[in-house]
Amino acid sequence: MDFMQEAANEALLAMGNCSPNPPVGAIIVSKDNKIIGRGHTQRFKHNHAEIEAINSCNEDLKESTLFTTLEPCNLTLNTPPCTDQIIKSKIKHVVIGSKDINPKINGAGINELIKANIKTEMSKINKTINYSLEAYNHYVKTKTPFLTLKMAMSLDGKIATNSGNSKWISGKESRKLVHEYRSNSDGILTGINTVLEDNPILNVRLKNNKKGYQPKKIIIDTKGKIPLESNCLDSNCIIITSEMSEKTKNELIAKSVLIEKVPLNKSGRVDLTYLNGILLKHNLTNILIECGSTLSSELLRLKLIHKILMFISPKIIGGSEYVPFSNIESDKMTDIVNLKNIEHTKIGEDILIKGWF
Amino acid sequence: MDFMQEAANEALLAMGNCSPNPPVGAIIVSKDNKIIGRGHTQRFKHNHAEIEAINSCNEDLKESTLFTTLEPCNLTLNTPPCTDQIIKSKIKHVVIGSKDINPKINGAGINELIKANIKTEMSKINKTINYSLEAYNHYVKTKTPFLTLKMAMSLDGKIATNSGNSKWISGKESRKLVHEYRSNSDGILTGINTVLEDNPILNVRLKNNKKGYQPKKIIIDTKGKIPLESNCLDSNCIIITSEMSEKTKNELIAKSVLIEKVPLNKSGRVDLTYLNGILLKHNLTNILIECGSTLSSELLRLKLIHKILMFISPKIIGGSEYVPFSNIESDKMTDIVNLKNIEHTKIGEDILIKGWF
Repeated sequence: MDFMQEAANEALLAMGNCSPNPPVGAIIVSKDNKIIGRGHTQRFKHNHAEIEAINSCNEDLKESTLFTTLEPCNLTLNTPPCTDQIIKSKIKHVVIGSKDINPKINGAGINELIKANIKTEMSKINKTINYSLEAYNHYVKTKTPFLTLKMAMSLDGKIATNSGNSKWISGKESRKLVHEYRSNSDGILTGINTVLEDNPILNVRLKNNKKGYQPKKIIIDTKGKIPLESNCLDSNCIIITSEMSEKTKNELIAKSVLIEKVPLNKSGRVDLTYLNGILLKHNLTNILIECGSTLSSELLRLKLIHKILMFISPKIIGGSEYVPFSNIESDKMTDIVNLKNIEHTKIGEDILIKGWF
Repeated sequence: MDFMQEAANEALLAMGNCSPNPPVGAIIVSKDNKIIGRGHTQRFKHNHAEIEAINSCNEDLKESTLFTTLEPCNLTLNTPPCTDQIIKSKIKHVVIGSKDINPKINGAGINELIKANIKTEMSKINKTINYSLEAYNHYVKTKTPFLTLKMAMSLDGKIATNSGNSKWISGKESRKLVHEYRSNSDGILTGINTVLEDNPILNVRLKNNKKGYQPKKIIIDTKGKIPLESNCLDSNCIIITSEMSEKTKNELIAKSVLIEKVPLNKSGRVDLTYLNGILLKHNLTNILIECGSTLSSELLRLKLIHKILMFISPKIIGGSEYVPFSNIESDKMTDIVNLKNIEHTKIGEDILIKGWF
């Protein structure tokens, strides 16, 4: 059994609910190779994964091994240092999936364990761990949230039919995967046009969903046009607006919706240079964008997108309407935005292309 | 050594030069597993692969094995039956890559060999053989040519920048692969707009090109607007036109260009329902289409495309101009054209998606 993969799967359970802390998974394994404990990072200011795993055990841990996806912290922040708890637990051996690049840790956690005579080693690279820590590592490096744009288009680059129908471009396996991506995100970002056209609920709908929480819904709505009966409106909803009427604002607040007011930009739309600040204020560092062409173009222009998930469906729709980035126009080849580290997978009948900006 | 793969590679050398005959490769292997002969189908009315392979040997073939990608024919068409030559050669063992679905053969070739006490068996499925026989099998079944549309677009579905620049959307590895596809085709089909915009040579440019011939160039040019100095004009060129002036026609004929005149359709363009007939008249059964949005839309509407090769480059261009099928417009999801048997591969930094209509 690949215990680090078990720990990585546990880390996925933390995703979407612990930012700005890193989503970490931990497994404790007995001398006779049985999993005797497991845990993952709880919400911000609550237990880290290692503590959850230790607390889940009744056994004596003297001969046990801890597999943790991230280097244990040696800092008192909102919780006591994990290294202290590991040492106190008498765990014999610690296997770590990834170093913590936070400059305040960055190997110091490992050193604490070694000083306490705990056998401490790094595991080989694990794709699930890299994915789970992508937003955290970005946030540590840049102090900005990590934004992933998800889109679905036909093989000829159309995100809807000529009449605006986008249900459904992609297949059911792709749509299920999108719900998994949603459940791993702190928030889903969309624009008012998508709300008006599709009236989405914008939540996670998965059979056997192990997570007891839903991502926030962040809606860009310059003029406060959102209908009060919209499916997405609930206490998870944050609306970013510039010109919402007091009346609408009060009605939305009565529905437990949060309103964030920001200035207009020169084009008379919400100035999205304020977006990152608002997301961080709400501890949202891992965002899935699901929007139409106008908002995606603006986010791309402002270099606010870090990753793209493009689901390509084996269909030809035709026509020039409903393209992914209608409001971006490159004249010269040198104007073009290039993506890096392209990956491709088949999801049902669709091809998912991942790329990084 | 995979001798059938060697035979399949030999079959690729026949592609583009033997239609409407099937492109076949054959290898003869000695008792001690050495390749002692090889050959591939020559141009129409000339030797088949098996005969070429037998003729390439000086040895006694009594103990040898013939690997051939297609069932040997037992018919006298333009050449004598291959089965007779194989029997006469005393070859002991024949391994066949694929049955010939031509109803006049379809197992009868195999039966001839068995009757002559030659050990005869089918090999396991080989992807190269399936590819090499795709156009032939389509032609046998439908009596129409097999048309493959090649396109290159950005990850947001654009085939050129806003100013019409398409050099280059795809990377150099993809462009090299396109030249291989060209060299495996009987002809390259394009429209006058591509000739006017890009002035392509439309030939195969490959280092170490083993083929001593070039595909035909078929250009759809309704009004005969092609400039006499166009790079593509030579004796390989066939122009399909409806309203070409006598003067232009004579000037083009003087350059050894073939002119095919067909009626206009209701939209005042070349009526492409005549296309298949013209292609067959010239023994062209395997066609690579490299064109812009107008012609691709018309070919798609007329259901003349059988396969698509979409090279997707990890770039974002933006805007709504220069899409793959501008003149097709689907309103409802049920209007959409679906592709089957989707395949995906990474070619350099691009993703190639193949699909079948």
